[in-house]
Amino acid sequence: MKDVHVGVIGLGNVGSGALSILAANADQIAVKLGFRLRVAAVCSRSLSGSTKLPDGLGDAVRTSDWREIVTNPRVDIVAELVGGTTVAREIIDGATANGKSIVTANKELMALSGAEIWDRAIKANINLAMEASVAGGIPIHAVLREGISGDRIVAIAGILNGTSNYILTEMERRGESFDSILGEAQALGYAEADPSADVDGYDARSKLAILAALAFGERITPSDIFVEGIRRITAQDFDYAHQLGHTIRLICGARQTERGLILSVRPALIRQSTILANVRGAYNAVWVKGQFGGDTFYYGRGAGASPTGVAVVSDLMRVAREIRNGSPERVSPFAHERLGEYAPVSIKLQHRAYYLRFRVNDRPGIIAELAGILASKQIGLEAVLQLPSNTKDHLPFVITVEPSSEQAVQDAVEQMRPLSFLREAPLALPMEPPL
Amino acid sequence: MKDVHVGVIGLGNVGSGALSILAANADQIAVKLGFRLRVAAVCSRSLSGSTKLPDGLGDAVRTSDWREIVTNPRVDIVAELVGGTTVAREIIDGATANGKSIVTANKELMALSGAEIWDRAIKANINLAMEASVAGGIPIHAVLREGISGDRIVAIAGILNGTSNYILTEMERRGESFDSILGEAQALGYAEADPSADVDGYDARSKLAILAALAFGERITPSDIFVEGIRRITAQDFDYAHQLGHTIRLICGARQTERGLILSVRPALIRQSTILANVRGAYNAVWVKGQFGGDTFYYGRGAGASPTGVAVVSDLMRVAREIRNGSPERVSPFAHERLGEYAPVSIKLQHRAYYLRFRVNDRPGIIAELAGILASKQIGLEAVLQLPSNTKDHLPFVITVEPSSEQAVQDAVEQMRPLSFLREAPLALPMEPPL
Repeated sequence: MKDVHVGVIGLGNVGSGALSILAANADQIAVKLGFRLRVAAVCSRSLSGSTKLPDGLGDAVRTSDWREIVTNPRVDIVAELVGGTTVAREIIDGATANGKSIVTANKELMALSGAEIWDRAIKANINLAMEASVAGGIPIHAVLREGISGDRIVAIAGILNGTSNYILTEMERRGESFDSILGEAQALGYAEADPSADVDGYDARSKLAILAALAFGERITPSDIFVEGIRRITAQDFDYAHQLGHTIRLICGARQTERGLILSVRPALIRQSTILANVRGAYNAVWVKGQFGGDTFYYGRGAGASPTGVAVVSDLMRVAREIRNGSPERVSPFAHERLGEYAPVSIKLQHRAYYLRFRVNDRPGIIAELAGILASKQIGLEAVLQLPSNTKDHLPFVITVEPSSEQAVQDAVEQMRPLSFLREAPLALPMEPPL
Repeated sequence: MKDVHVGVIGLGNVGSGALSILAANADQIAVKLGFRLRVAAVCSRSLSGSTKLPDGLGDAVRTSDWREIVTNPRVDIVAELVGGTTVAREIIDGATANGKSIVTANKELMALSGAEIWDRAIKANINLAMEASVAGGIPIHAVLREGISGDRIVAIAGILNGTSNYILTEMERRGESFDSILGEAQALGYAEADPSADVDGYDARSKLAILAALAFGERITPSDIFVEGIRRITAQDFDYAHQLGHTIRLICGARQTERGLILSVRPALIRQSTILANVRGAYNAVWVKGQFGGDTFYYGRGAGASPTGVAVVSDLMRVAREIRNGSPERVSPFAHERLGEYAPVSIKLQHRAYYLRFRVNDRPGIIAELAGILASKQIGLEAVLQLPSNTKDHLPFVITVEPSSEQAVQDAVEQMRPLSFLREAPLALPMEPPL
């Protein structure tokens, strides 16, 4: 039987992980496929002909020029593992032009340009796979594409950024500040020197854009998604959340409503008794609600050389099988046009209970003034909470409000912002209902 | 584009669920596939030409003779949804002989004869799909077959029988007896009049046989799997388990060891802090440990018309896509021969800490006698626990022992059994380490 040959571009974390697995599992992969998956060529910027590769991959051509991979006649599948949106796009376009199928781990590029890249792939009669682009260790693409493809998805809620989940759960566990845990995570190499992509929600937003496109068959780009990061969360917010039977997580949510699809990445209160609330550290998780299949839940490592490497290798196996069978998939998972039913709409249409946290210079009449503003927006007050505090002069307190529109709550927050007794703008977090 | 036509045999719970979804989701399915999936014919024993089908399926031929489906030239895929191992086998063999691809929800048949049925299917160049045979709402086949196929599975642990999980979690929640909750479940229709398949572990054993075959690529049959049901668990066992920071669940376990694969379905103590311990009611869950990808977890409804229907419809979509592309899979997920590395071995080789519960007529010297027997088997005693009880004369107590071989513990239990102060044989439950 004819083997299928892979060219791997990018030998960072994910590329090295994938190569190690391809080498270590070569025999088992051959049993599962009925033929061998061979690494024909590898490329990275710093690679030379003498670079050591894992045992069993010694025959692979080594190059530092990716063009040699996408034009190599022996290569059937190109694994684009360099990341980013510039060279990666050239690699993918080059592979497409040369009739090579593609496996990519590139969330940013697929979130921005996935629909267009898929269209070109279909025209070129090649296959494209991107399991590793979202939640590395969780095979959520296979689940949505194959496992529950017959269902109609109603909502998804995920924890898709391991760094921010690690920071939040450590803040919760140890009662320490965001800055202190972030600094520690940076020192340990868990967080980047510039942490913005993780803690401001942009990384999670790219992942949600891809997942929502797959789940709803809708054309979704990152700009359709409301995003808010975790920098303003404090250890005291966890104390208040616990008081309310909740915890705080950076939740990636997509929910079909009568008005359209509401998409957001933001910190939210979720009930402590839910499985999602028990996702700790660098783990990722996705909750899916189907109209027919009901609730399903998927959990695993979000990143790392080996978990993401498994996603890449599993994609290579699937694409290899289809190459051997002469049947690339011909339907893009990204919609060609908006279907209407799932068209993204503004988060301002969303109704939720909200947690509003205030840090003030104490004086009489504060609650009355805040409650007056809420009442003027037709927002019903649920509870006022104040935990004992030893920082008496700017003690935080919390008001929870009944389900109200995001629009009304944002308007109220805007009106409160200039009030002289506030030491900072109010923090408003939605309280997510159980999916 | 040419449509693909389905013949559905069996209109019970699962068949009706699948038909409803095929009708309700027809347009979305066509968008995802790029062609239509049509129901050409349906069959059930009581069906007549005038039986009402869901809207949109009115054109389907109705018959009470399954032979008319498997020989119908318009039918491309036969959905075998009758269950059991007799007629179902004839249907599958008939479909195979007529070159129809097959989707089945039949755990019993696939656990017993899956390898042989797959071999025939491959020879006949048809495809076979069986997502619905295990944990209906959880797409665990897609996960193992596609999503994490590049990994090497080390262990799986599942809760695969919803009825027994419902009984255990209700006993735990309400402190009531097995008999009382079972009776209630039977009255509510959650449990069968003859509950043996569920509460004695046989249903879960069939499911584990299929999952383990997929996960390890090994030929596994139900007789390779140690099985013990939940009839002996009492509300007091939950009290003791909680005291130890654990709960009790019917765990389907498969674990690769240096000596081979150890397979069991049995009640076990698992830590309350694990996600698996928080699977309640009729839900199912599967924990998978991969050598490279680490821990992943999958959760959803275990049964029911709609969740299992989604599995059937998703399988139909995948098989239809492959029929259209002319590429049935050619590698059986069941091994042709034992691979050695994963050959099942006796559970007696397993090392675990154990929970031993005794119900006795109190008299001096009981602990000394039991401890003496344990010592003679080289089993180290960990703790002796006795909760306050108002049934003084046959109060239960618990001994936990250090990790020991199942062989030694079973030997000790055998030696204890005739002791005159025991009111019943000791109950021995393994304490599962976290995966």
